Amino acid sequence: MSASPLLEQLIESLRCLPGVGQKSAQRMAYHLLEREREGGLRLAGALAEAIERIGHCESCRDFSETPLCAICASGSRDRGLLCAVESPADRLAIETATGYRGLYFVLQGRLSPLDGIGPRELGLDKLAERLAAGEVRELIIATNPTVEGEATAHYLAQLARQAQVRPSRLAHGVPLGGELEYVDRGTLAHAFGSRTEITS
Amino acid sequence: MSASPLLEQLIESLRCLPGVGQKSAQRMAYHLLEREREGGLRLAGALAEAIERIGHCESCRDFSETPLCAICASGSRDRGLLCAVESPADRLAIETATGYRGLYFVLQGRLSPLDGIGPRELGLDKLAERLAAGEVRELIIATNPTVEGEATAHYLAQLARQAQVRPSRLAHGVPLGGELEYVDRGTLAHAFGSRTEITS
Ligand SMILES: [Zn+2]
Ligand SMILES: [Zn+2]
Repeated sequence: MSASPLLEQLIESLRCLPGVGQKSAQRMAYHLLEREREGGLRLAGALAEAIERIGHCESCRDFSETPLCAICASGSRDRGLLCAVESPADRLAIETATGYRGLYFVLQGRLSPLDGIGPRELGLDKLAERLAAGEVRELIIATNPTVEGEATAHYLAQLARQAQVRPSRLAHGVPLGGELEYVDRGTLAHAFGSRTEITS
Repeated sequence: MSASPLLEQLIESLRCLPGVGQKSAQRMAYHLLEREREGGLRLAGALAEAIERIGHCESCRDFSETPLCAICASGSRDRGLLCAVESPADRLAIETATGYRGLYFVLQGRLSPLDGIGPRELGLDKLAERLAAGEVRELIIATNPTVEGEATAHYLAQLARQAQVRPSRLAHGVPLGGELEYVDRGTLAHAFGSRTEITS
């Protein structure tokens, strides 16, 4: 028997968070009620607002609550540089670690034919149009150094060449088989700075 | 530069959860936006409602959204049995693992004079009144087997004896130095079933 149906409901709801099982959910619920009521209310508000208002940027496909995200809408970014990443987390990692001042294209995935994820699902038709429009002079390919990430990079480099855009790839330094999101800032900044042109 | 201020705000707010740092908060926010929008909205609602409406039961001090919690208000519990636990989590663990049909008293802590936590902070004045009222015939003391938990148990046993109430303690089986909340169900059920009277 539960002493509080609302508490049960809160514990159950917390389990939608990744990596949170029954025990963690209980601990979180008790912690919030005992010591963090203010923070909990703020979280409830931020969560509802984010879910109701955040969609995708029309230009880069990253999360955004406006048609164009703050980066795409900025007047102070170099529009000749476009950096393709797999996920919003990778975009954030590069933005935080490097001094990059260009724009991004967020694939929201990587080519994976067996899972039904092809060029269309990654918005590559829109990317091709954008490359053809002539404003972009370099496509920095920052997919993860995994098998599927490399295949995606190869495809993107071809797209760039077809549009006479120079493709480049992050320099060695990113550990093979690793995930960009978890690379330390220094390594990531170094790899970003010494990215190399893709020539073959 | 952040692509979405609302997303930044969500990540920051998630950090009020215990054990959640910047990286986990990011991962949670992206997961919610990418795959769990419905669950996220449900969580936001459950969290706001729980924080706004959950207080403490007047009788047992556990969390409750009504003056009396569902257990204290139930007509089908044995009012002659009272089980004292340190926390709502311990109460939940006993309720889940055992067939106990009596009532609870949630101390919301343990005696710890150095931290300024005395009998009054644990509501022991109210507990003494309740024991004196004559309805309770056995006080099952289920504090944790730590130094402070044992000192609290000793104090509670004295209170019970003063009121001619039989004090008992969970049987051996609970590992020494452990926390009740993390004991497996089987051990806890066994220990609860073979609780022993405190005679000295
Ligand atoms: Zn954008
Ligand atoms: Zn109660």
